[in-house]
Amino acid sequence: MSLTLYIDSNYLSPYALSAFVALREKGLAFTPVPVDLQAGAHRTGAMSVLSATLRVPTLSDGEFHLSESSAIAEYLEDTCPGPRLYPADPKQRAKAREIQAWIRSDLLPLRMERSTEVVFREVTPPPLSDAAQAAADKLLRAAERLLPPGAAHLFGEWCVADTDLALMLQRLLRAGDKVPERLAVYANAQWQRAAVQEWVALGRKSRGDQ
Amino acid sequence: MSLTLYIDSNYLSPYALSAFVALREKGLAFTPVPVDLQAGAHRTGAMSVLSATLRVPTLSDGEFHLSESSAIAEYLEDTCPGPRLYPADPKQRAKAREIQAWIRSDLLPLRMERSTEVVFREVTPPPLSDAAQAAADKLLRAAERLLPPGAAHLFGEWCVADTDLALMLQRLLRAGDKVPERLAVYANAQWQRAAVQEWVALGRKSRGDQ
Ligand SMILES: [Ca+2]
Ligand SMILES: [Ca+2]
Ligand SMILES: [Ca+2]
Ligand SMILES: [Ca+2]
Repeated sequence: MSLTLYIDSNYLSPYALSAFVALREKGLAFTPVPVDLQAGAHRTGAMSVLSATLRVPTLSDGEFHLSESSAIAEYLEDTCPGPRLYPADPKQRAKAREIQAWIRSDLLPLRMERSTEVVFREVTPPPLSDAAQAAADKLLRAAERLLPPGAAHLFGEWCVADTDLALMLQRLLRAGDKVPERLAVYANAQWQRAAVQEWVALGRKSRGDQ
Repeated sequence: MSLTLYIDSNYLSPYALSAFVALREKGLAFTPVPVDLQAGAHRTGAMSVLSATLRVPTLSDGEFHLSESSAIAEYLEDTCPGPRLYPADPKQRAKAREIQAWIRSDLLPLRMERSTEVVFREVTPPPLSDAAQAAADKLLRAAERLLPPGAAHLFGEWCVADTDLALMLQRLLRAGDKVPERLAVYANAQWQRAAVQEWVALGRKSRGDQ
């Protein structure tokens, strides 16, 4: 297995983070290749040949190329040994997939107004619009239902949906928006995982503000 | 197994269609329950108790409740016998998941300007904006790369991503937008599948324009 992960060169894509963490948590050796999205390198460079959808992250496993972070994590789970990325229990695995799909397709006003620059670059954003506040409220209500009281993880032990949910909560936490205490504790503990901290450090290094 | 599928009462959600088709293709008995989204029934009625994310489709399997159409299809695949919803080959399965995740998270201007009212209600929309045209071009380029020449299915035989991709292409076809011939043939053949036609008929019946 010769694995390459194409990621955004400014380390801001939450989905590139998710795929990066999945590879690290599986304990797999891989080569991260930063792609300059601002320069359009995903549309013109090597990646445009590999990814029909021109999106980061894209994983190359030899001659096989795969985009979409959730599909990448599932592929690693299906084909690689190592620690699980998804719960073994079918119902818990289903809920992990629900959370991944939901985070990627809903809450757009929140994702816009609390971009990952807030999370990774300590940019301080203006107050939330009504639409983004409604999305934030929905996120927090759903997270309170999905995360068992006092739990460090959604499903007993870490899964990739924990990292995705923690990133969503960090959008609010880093902006100073109100987050219930137990969700803040959860999100901050998830943020300390080695693979997440490695990603954070790579972003800092790429900006020269180490 | 006692299965209930909560769907939108006007039969316009492409994701409710996808979950409906998944259940039918598996040959599973289930009760479809229309939810009036316009009246806010997903936020106040029975569904708000079942779905933390307040989204249709939501599947109930006894006391287990699951939202997000892709998670629902995966859950059925993991737990039910019957015809496959995803390819057996891990790489093909990965690409099917890529397509599902991509369609649900990209091409937003196209999804806005070619809503499923165009597909299911023969509403004729205005010409595409530049942003939506760019999204349409991206969809068509990707579809041409993903669908082998002359193929009736993405991966040799039907999988749930075929229905999802065909729905995306129907947004353009029904509006009279330009679609390469072989993609049109593919999308129209997919549209004839019994489960899709059943959904189309349910929508017509709900509007009294049978
Ligand atoms: Ca992406
Ligand atoms: Ca983590
Ligand atoms: Ca939905
Ligand atoms: Ca079909």
